[in-house]
Amino acid sequence: MPLLQQYHFNASLSSSSSPFVAPLSAFNSSASRNKNVSLPPPNFGICRCVATPQEAKTQTAYKTNVSRNANMGKLQAGYLFPEVARRRNAHKEKYPDAQVISLGIGDTTEPIPDVITSSMSKKCQALSTLEGYSGYGAEQGEKPLRAAIRSTFYADLGIDDDDIFVSDGAKCDISRLQVVFGSNVTMAVQDPSYPAYVDSSVIMGQTGQFQKDVEKYANIEYMDCTPENGFFPDLSKSPRTDIIFFCSPNNPTGAAATREQLTRLVQFAKDNGSIIVYDSAYALYMSDDNPRSIFEIPGAREVAIETSSFSKYAGFTGVRLGWTVVPKELLFSDGFPVARDFNRVVCTCFNGASTVAQAGGLACLSPEGLKQAMHEVIGFYKGNTEIIVDTFNSLGFKVYGGRNAPYVWVHFPGRSSWDVFAEILEKTHVVTTPGSGFGPGGEGFVRVSAFGHRGNVLEACKRFRQLYK
Amino acid sequence: MPLLQQYHFNASLSSSSSPFVAPLSAFNSSASRNKNVSLPPPNFGICRCVATPQEAKTQTAYKTNVSRNANMGKLQAGYLFPEVARRRNAHKEKYPDAQVISLGIGDTTEPIPDVITSSMSKKCQALSTLEGYSGYGAEQGEKPLRAAIRSTFYADLGIDDDDIFVSDGAKCDISRLQVVFGSNVTMAVQDPSYPAYVDSSVIMGQTGQFQKDVEKYANIEYMDCTPENGFFPDLSKSPRTDIIFFCSPNNPTGAAATREQLTRLVQFAKDNGSIIVYDSAYALYMSDDNPRSIFEIPGAREVAIETSSFSKYAGFTGVRLGWTVVPKELLFSDGFPVARDFNRVVCTCFNGASTVAQAGGLACLSPEGLKQAMHEVIGFYKGNTEIIVDTFNSLGFKVYGGRNAPYVWVHFPGRSSWDVFAEILEKTHVVTTPGSGFGPGGEGFVRVSAFGHRGNVLEACKRFRQLYK
Repeated sequence: MPLLQQYHFNASLSSSSSPFVAPLSAFNSSASRNKNVSLPPPNFGICRCVATPQEAKTQTAYKTNVSRNANMGKLQAGYLFPEVARRRNAHKEKYPDAQVISLGIGDTTEPIPDVITSSMSKKCQALSTLEGYSGYGAEQGEKPLRAAIRSTFYADLGIDDDDIFVSDGAKCDISRLQVVFGSNVTMAVQDPSYPAYVDSSVIMGQTGQFQKDVEKYANIEYMDCTPENGFFPDLSKSPRTDIIFFCSPNNPTGAAATREQLTRLVQFAKDNGSIIVYDSAYALYMSDDNPRSIFEIPGAREVAIETSSFSKYAGFTGVRLGWTVVPKELLFSDGFPVARDFNRVVCTCFNGASTVAQAGGLACLSPEGLKQAMHEVIGFYKGNTEIIVDTFNSLGFKVYGGRNAPYVWVHFPGRSSWDVFAEILEKTHVVTTPGSGFGPGGEGFVRVSAFGHRGNVLEACKRFRQLYK
Repeated sequence: MPLLQQYHFNASLSSSSSPFVAPLSAFNSSASRNKNVSLPPPNFGICRCVATPQEAKTQTAYKTNVSRNANMGKLQAGYLFPEVARRRNAHKEKYPDAQVISLGIGDTTEPIPDVITSSMSKKCQALSTLEGYSGYGAEQGEKPLRAAIRSTFYADLGIDDDDIFVSDGAKCDISRLQVVFGSNVTMAVQDPSYPAYVDSSVIMGQTGQFQKDVEKYANIEYMDCTPENGFFPDLSKSPRTDIIFFCSPNNPTGAAATREQLTRLVQFAKDNGSIIVYDSAYALYMSDDNPRSIFEIPGAREVAIETSSFSKYAGFTGVRLGWTVVPKELLFSDGFPVARDFNRVVCTCFNGASTVAQAGGLACLSPEGLKQAMHEVIGFYKGNTEIIVDTFNSLGFKVYGGRNAPYVWVHFPGRSSWDVFAEILEKTHVVTTPGSGFGPGGEGFVRVSAFGHRGNVLEACKRFRQLYK
């Protein structure tokens, strides 16, 4: 199936039950960043993907007596990326002959090196033999893979093999961590940040209602990450929270925290008795000499959890494999180890990553796998990043990120992110991601992903140059 | 790796952070079901796998100021199956030369038919090609697989393709459903039942504390399922709850509800405005002419969710693939569709099942896959079941289940399940599952799984005959 058809196909699935009420037609196609497009209705920036009860046939249909979970009702929008996919799909329907290029969701496009897929393929074939068949694996992952993750990413950092929990992805682990924490914790996030942190917090009942005036949920601390502060929050102004979600290199801004900044972050957590959930899913994209793991910072094992993923390292977005490190030194206030509760949730709510994916993960961490998947494929996407950065720089935009992450964060001062998203889609058939989808701090920005075939990235950049020349 | 070594290997992983404080030595090896073994300490039946805070080095270690989630603290034991695996492992260490046979956790042992693994293998290889590579799939599963699940299992039952959510397993979906429901619902379970229902309910905060005198959590309705009532609860004595977990054919009792019983259950839910979460993971093991889906009952789409799995149908315990059906007719009390909230949780807390597993699932539902995986492999395990049933029958035990499920439920009246479990393990090197691990209603029973190589099942039954002759 050709790539673009496949995209289209996925988009239509993702959005099958995600109605979106703000009309696309609200977008004014007048296209120049120096010229304001007609103002959208006040709530345009919030994609209201949650239907109101009235939309159901309340008069005639049988209803149970089970109350809807009030926390689910707080959610203001469908999850960001299915919504972006839905918009892409609608665009494809409007322009069936257009060559739509997706630099949106951050989905890997390059084939997985053969050394890895061969290993997965062999594992599949072995499942048809008496000797090679295996059923349930350990919920925490296979021992050789846990050991390989430790030695590859955490050598000499004081992490043990059994601190590592293999999973079906970092996003899934974030929700399992939220289940461990429960509803009575307070949390902080970088603003902007990957939306799974905030959304899972809302679902678990850690937050208050959405406050439309500031576009924030009550009871979440949004730590401003702006060009002015180098995308690192001013901790002197940050109140204590129980949990601090921190992603570096950051999705979406691409900013990577320095050793000095992370040392301050760990000290801040220690002073407050907070737990940092550190998302290092893009660490291998770093060009600068910043820490690739929070555990490079002395004392971090007592205050931090780290979650990461093979998705962006080895093109495993569809294969599904990640891991989370919960050091045994990390204790709740009563001295109970966080790892034991995480283990309990992993055993009760999860049954381990697919053994086929785990075979692939082990191959990724072989010398050949590391060379081909980690270095060559990542190097390829980093090449894309440079092309995108150069393009927007040459057009006079302020551009951030890119150097340490596969995301380019482009500033469109004074404009609505969803407007710019729609303008780019309408005029160039290129899908990006609106910055405000990552939090109010992302308003006025658009995230351009570097995941794409080289030809598509070059073509997209050519169209950007035509649109914004 | 030989099969038994692999088992041992998995067990040691599963239990790496699951301390168990009740000593195995409490078991008296005197072995006859007619003779009482020495009484265990009062709490022996409860495996206390959750360490008390004092176990951590509270004096010296740094502690965060984050309070442990009180709901996690309510859990009385490690999740049942890792605990069984831990015991098996300890036994292997005690008797390194013993040929340990596992009829415990219900883990499939037979190779997956080649028609299925070939398809998975091809998918892996395709991931190394430009044309065959695919990244993120739809969170809800690939369209052809959703369609195939519908046409195979739900033809003419009024279920649409997009009512079906593909997942990494029914156990995982149970927890995602609990996240959708939140902490303010009340729930009922069959007693005994698969422990993931109760444990996930505790974790989500739906329950009160564990009441040691009755070995039940407060605020859960345990519906007695005993030989006396044919393992179907007396609904006239059951109070209303928001959610009713119902597994048929039941794990662990093997009892399958009849059409008449399920019609009463649906009517009971409708009268009360309850939601049934129907677990049909063993439906294809049914010999009797009972419904294989709750949606065979008229009106069920307005009150029921169904979750199921490829694990026991196609040996996918390690591959990880299941599905959940949430009909669009199922509404919360305010008229909001349950499916929309489930979709939101699936999109936010999950990223889809592995595309390789999904390729396997699609092959399972091809005509060849259905014949080989569903009918031949299931038929093989059903043959095992007959052998186990005959063995215990011939020894004079009361035996339940087996006919409609891969589990045999053996009664040891007046004895502790954990005692019998330990007796069987010590004397025959066969791992079973203690009935009380499924709820207080399972006390006095042991579950014997029919998942095993034929030679192992025959050998285990020979040993049972020697022990209980």
